[in-house]
Amino acid sequence: MKALGQHLILELYGCSAKALSSVTFVQDAMVQGARAANATIIDSVFHHFKPHGVSGVVVIAESHFAIHTWPEHGFASVDLFTCGGQTKPWEAFKTVKNLFKATHFSVMKLERGLLPRNKAKAPRRRPARAAAAAR
Amino acid sequence: MKALGQHLILELYGCSAKALSSVTFVQDAMVQGARAANATIIDSVFHHFKPHGVSGVVVIAESHFAIHTWPEHGFASVDLFTCGGQTKPWEAFKTVKNLFKATHFSVMKLERGLLPRNKAKAPRRRPARAAAAAR
Repeated sequence: MKALGQHLILELYGCSAKALSSVTFVQDAMVQGARAANATIIDSVFHHFKPHGVSGVVVIAESHFAIHTWPEHGFASVDLFTCGGQTKPWEAFKTVKNLFKATHFSVMKLERGLLPRNKAKAPRRRPARAAAAAR
Repeated sequence: MKALGQHLILELYGCSAKALSSVTFVQDAMVQGARAANATIIDSVFHHFKPHGVSGVVVIAESHFAIHTWPEHGFASVDLFTCGGQTKPWEAFKTVKNLFKATHFSVMKLERGLLPRNKAKAPRRRPARAAAAAR
């Protein structure tokens, strides 16, 4: 069996509340993570919530990175979903964990899209310009 | 223990390749799913890839829904991440699964952000207008 995608599911506890509260910091951290993973950033959407928290997604050519923060609990949930062999999601994990100064954490790795090995080889994807940013 | 978020992880096999290839169809399906879940849609980003596939995210006030499709394999990975007690992610699951005509599937439910029960009660979030759409 071979998987089409790799999905790292992070639970970051004991993070800096100040960092988790700043939409600028959170977005920058996720973009830094994407770069560390050697991912191709296509778009990103980040929002600040009242009274607390930031949600955001970085859409990458290799899938997506997402984050939701609860500064009042020093907690962030992070999803790092990649496909293809070019990206290094564990580098993104290290980058994000360190930037938020998580004191403890868990990581679960899921293999997404399990197919028989001879069917799982897919061509490398690239954005279709004409259809990009269709909203 | 109580969780801050609920995360449904769907693997949809045997889907309509035509549906999975259309960025319009995929986006509409995810938006329909968000509505079925009683979620508040804030933003969405969808992209078509060459030679195959669509990636997209719907950012909701209650977290996010994400999808990646591999039409050549009839496969879609879908993540339905919600927080708060107002949303119904299983309604989104049924909507999306049916729209893509998945013949078989798996669903995993993860509880994200487990905290002691007396700490997990968070105020209902609403978008902060001033900081919304910070990119």
